[in-house]
Amino acid sequence: MFNFPIPSIESYFRTLNIMDFDVKPDEEEIVYSTNLNGYYNLWAINPDKPYPYQLTTANQMNSFVKYDPKSRHLLTGYDHDGDEDYHIYAVPPAGGETAPLLQAKGEKFYYGDLSKDGRTLYYITSVDNPNFLNICRLNLETGEKEVLLRGEEGPSYLFSVSPDETSFTYSKQLGNTSSFGYILKNGEPILLTPSNEEAHRVNQVEYLDNDTVLMVTNYQNEFSYLASFSLNTRSFEKVVVIEGYELTNLTLDQAGNKVYFVAQRGVEDLLYSFDLETKQLQQIEKPFDMVDKLVVGKKGTIFASGRSATQPANLFRTSDLNAWEQLTKHQIIGVSQSELTEPEVGTYESFDGLEMEALFYPANPETSNGHTVLWPHGGPQHAVRKNFTPLFQYLCAQGFNVFAPNFRGSTGYGETFMKLVNKDWGGGPRLDIVAGMDWLDQQGKSSSDKWFCIGGSYGGYMTLLLHGRHADKFKAFVDIFGPSNLFTTIETAPEHWKAADRELIGDPVEDREKLIEDSPMTYIEQMTKPMLVIQGKNDPRVVKVESDVIVEAMEQRGQDVEYLVLEDEGHGFSKTENAIKVYKTMVEFLGKYI
Amino acid sequence: MFNFPIPSIESYFRTLNIMDFDVKPDEEEIVYSTNLNGYYNLWAINPDKPYPYQLTTANQMNSFVKYDPKSRHLLTGYDHDGDEDYHIYAVPPAGGETAPLLQAKGEKFYYGDLSKDGRTLYYITSVDNPNFLNICRLNLETGEKEVLLRGEEGPSYLFSVSPDETSFTYSKQLGNTSSFGYILKNGEPILLTPSNEEAHRVNQVEYLDNDTVLMVTNYQNEFSYLASFSLNTRSFEKVVVIEGYELTNLTLDQAGNKVYFVAQRGVEDLLYSFDLETKQLQQIEKPFDMVDKLVVGKKGTIFASGRSATQPANLFRTSDLNAWEQLTKHQIIGVSQSELTEPEVGTYESFDGLEMEALFYPANPETSNGHTVLWPHGGPQHAVRKNFTPLFQYLCAQGFNVFAPNFRGSTGYGETFMKLVNKDWGGGPRLDIVAGMDWLDQQGKSSSDKWFCIGGSYGGYMTLLLHGRHADKFKAFVDIFGPSNLFTTIETAPEHWKAADRELIGDPVEDREKLIEDSPMTYIEQMTKPMLVIQGKNDPRVVKVESDVIVEAMEQRGQDVEYLVLEDEGHGFSKTENAIKVYKTMVEFLGKYI
Repeated sequence: MFNFPIPSIESYFRTLNIMDFDVKPDEEEIVYSTNLNGYYNLWAINPDKPYPYQLTTANQMNSFVKYDPKSRHLLTGYDHDGDEDYHIYAVPPAGGETAPLLQAKGEKFYYGDLSKDGRTLYYITSVDNPNFLNICRLNLETGEKEVLLRGEEGPSYLFSVSPDETSFTYSKQLGNTSSFGYILKNGEPILLTPSNEEAHRVNQVEYLDNDTVLMVTNYQNEFSYLASFSLNTRSFEKVVVIEGYELTNLTLDQAGNKVYFVAQRGVEDLLYSFDLETKQLQQIEKPFDMVDKLVVGKKGTIFASGRSATQPANLFRTSDLNAWEQLTKHQIIGVSQSELTEPEVGTYESFDGLEMEALFYPANPETSNGHTVLWPHGGPQHAVRKNFTPLFQYLCAQGFNVFAPNFRGSTGYGETFMKLVNKDWGGGPRLDIVAGMDWLDQQGKSSSDKWFCIGGSYGGYMTLLLHGRHADKFKAFVDIFGPSNLFTTIETAPEHWKAADRELIGDPVEDREKLIEDSPMTYIEQMTKPMLVIQGKNDPRVVKVESDVIVEAMEQRGQDVEYLVLEDEGHGFSKTENAIKVYKTMVEFLGKYI
Repeated sequence: MFNFPIPSIESYFRTLNIMDFDVKPDEEEIVYSTNLNGYYNLWAINPDKPYPYQLTTANQMNSFVKYDPKSRHLLTGYDHDGDEDYHIYAVPPAGGETAPLLQAKGEKFYYGDLSKDGRTLYYITSVDNPNFLNICRLNLETGEKEVLLRGEEGPSYLFSVSPDETSFTYSKQLGNTSSFGYILKNGEPILLTPSNEEAHRVNQVEYLDNDTVLMVTNYQNEFSYLASFSLNTRSFEKVVVIEGYELTNLTLDQAGNKVYFVAQRGVEDLLYSFDLETKQLQQIEKPFDMVDKLVVGKKGTIFASGRSATQPANLFRTSDLNAWEQLTKHQIIGVSQSELTEPEVGTYESFDGLEMEALFYPANPETSNGHTVLWPHGGPQHAVRKNFTPLFQYLCAQGFNVFAPNFRGSTGYGETFMKLVNKDWGGGPRLDIVAGMDWLDQQGKSSSDKWFCIGGSYGGYMTLLLHGRHADKFKAFVDIFGPSNLFTTIETAPEHWKAADRELIGDPVEDREKLIEDSPMTYIEQMTKPMLVIQGKNDPRVVKVESDVIVEAMEQRGQDVEYLVLEDEGHGFSKTENAIKVYKTMVEFLGKYI
């Protein structure tokens, strides 16, 4: 009866998200971090009658949430306006004012594990050891703190504590592809894998009992798999290998003697269960593409947070693994799932013959303007996947195509592929992207004279570099907190990242020439197209000066550059009003150059 | 295990509210206006699985919401930042951008009724007739508008349209106690009550069929009751009278041939059903004290929004009238209902022997500071009832008692009692309040030297007047948009209120002496105690100058006065962050004088 205006950018960026969740021991409540009131806070629902009620009012993004085993309180963590100095708080069981448990200005406290009786909180902190971190515990009854392991050589992260609290597992990260796993028992660090002579990673370790742990590792393999280690026999054993898939998100079902895990390949997630007794492996159907987290309740119900390219993060549960019930109803305001764009998955050969996978979101044919937005993802050891991305959906609705290639260095294609970005930030990956654009043009899906580029973090770096080295291929650029000078990036990185960064980016002395070659600032004189630069003031990963220098240099040269700084954000836009402002500015900026 | 801080003021003022709601014809969705994201917007739930999803993003308080009978869209109204110029919009069925239907700068459009086929919207507007308003209709298919009745003598409001759309009912408001009801059929206005010689009010009229209407009126009675009128026979008949109770919220159940209504007396609501065939009257138990609205679904389910002194507005439903199911879960963050203060209901004799009812909220004994806050309610023809009031609950938690008397002029005690405030704003009601304070002091529930006063609107006026005439009885005052000069109040009132105001407040010429006597400004020199004044910049009822003059005068005299102006609010605080700011300022202000 009426001609309603098409949904605005507000509709897209008011879509609710879920950061973490946990299930109450009696399965009668789920707590989760969501941005229902425009900021992230903890909210809870009764899964049988899921009307949400607010528990906290800090208006900060929660890094984790965990129920006390006796439901006496909740534990959570958050930083301040994106500064990534996470502190840990206790929350009353019905919500309200939090009590700080671990808090110190400028320091980081990461959640590790909680003892079965809920009395002892295990955590990782930068206090006294900003480079390599310490693993500590806090007695929640007495307030007493104790350092259990002082990180050395590389940062140490706690995985899990044994049921009897006589041992714990942790990783020592020596580089970005070497992160060894250990058990510490009676003061002795015991390697979980047969050897640490070759680079490999242990990503997750869970105790089956006081003797045996299950881990996710890629020891002597291209892809990660499940393995076990026995403390008594000191034996390492492969448990589940699915060739060509990265296994992740290991979740124990102690009562059912089963484990659940996710098998990732490229843009997709498969969900599996594995019976520890019968060794039966079973793939589980699910109504979402990506599995963010699984929790097995005490009664055996499986709870999941999941998303798809056309569906925001929602909570689900299943009792029988066949039928899933969607508990939350997060959706774009006024846009049904069927109206959203499902990406096409394609592969192409890069300049040197290496195969690349990419996602292509075609523009809404009714509004199509013939332009394509290149999205070089962040990381760089990360990937675009069938994930809900409001920006992509909004761009498609507005008539843009979106092209997002998983260039070399992306995760999900094996360890060798991932390592190809190490010390080659501006080489192979850049040429993979250019090859992908040519491939898309050749198919007629894009026009070589109608490209834009938007990227954040490493994607912002790539945006700057493409501007400096391939300005002629694009009409305009949007750089979101992208490093502009790799020497600055290395120097200003958080202390405990520096070891990994040396392997990933390079050494300022040894790799000087390459770092100059790969730094966008080197090509500042060729940055001649309009550019919008967006930066969070508190960003501890890519500090504001990286954006300042690019903007100043372009301004001095009389180039067309716009600069948007968010005062209360870090490396991301956590607050709904900020996100709307950022993306509105971005789309208006592109609109000027169509 | 932890000493959690006590819930902060944020917890109390982040409590969610419900402004209006409607039920989808198939009963599978409820739409309601709530402040989930800190602003009022329309949200919806599936009552079987009540996770809310947002439909609109206007961030303005909705004046009404109504489903199209075929669920093709929703209709809603809202003003801009409290200016009370309500416009009417269509909302897509799944939410999104609204389409304006009735919109004109500086004009008001009130929802009247919607035809059974959903094609015609009946409304009331200030356009071309700001004093007395016009009743109009809009063809939603063609966009054609038509004036059906031009208001004369007093403002006209549409009640309802007959099923065949050949007649409609409306009121003509000649004063604040005279509001006659009519049917307009073939151009002829037919009085719904036997005579308009005596003052009375018709408050609501609903069509049972094209011939018969049911109405709520107090014609020749102290309290309102249900009556019927037949167009064919022109006969008026009393249908349900419950002596001593005001009947309100008449809700038809066409399928069940029943009506539901609320019986109000003083601070409490009773809910009744009445079978139109058997004439059986039945009281219905309910898990809330106050009934805000009832909707009978097409399948016969009863939906209600209700509240109690210790429970915020929530949505409920019942199929069998015995068991109610609570659908929403609005509560104070971290404070259970049992921790909240249930008010005591008391009565006392005033200076002239008239009986007054009052609510007394005792302070939390653990935090009690011995101080009592007087709350003169607004209106003045309004009442304090067992309603959820976050301010009262927070004050009690902080150790204050709250005393709220229903002084003469309050509603719920009969027409005679209500009329006693007419042209006596500053006389009887003020002495009733003073008598109530003395009565409370005598019982030892309050201390004569430990009183504060907070009031809004007429309550703000009373606060100013008590400050001017009884400053010695209080330690400090908080005036929330209170009229300071009754001549200004009369002059700046919305045009269509002026007739009623002449009866309620007085005539600037005829009642000059009394208006001077009752204007707080007359006593400005005696206002010697600290005062906080709060005003919404867009308030169309009590304009900002009313607060400005008081603040300026007090400042010139060197008095201790604070002034808080809300830029984006009118006669209320609709935005959560504003409400938190206002009440935080208020409680900090009181704290200084304990």
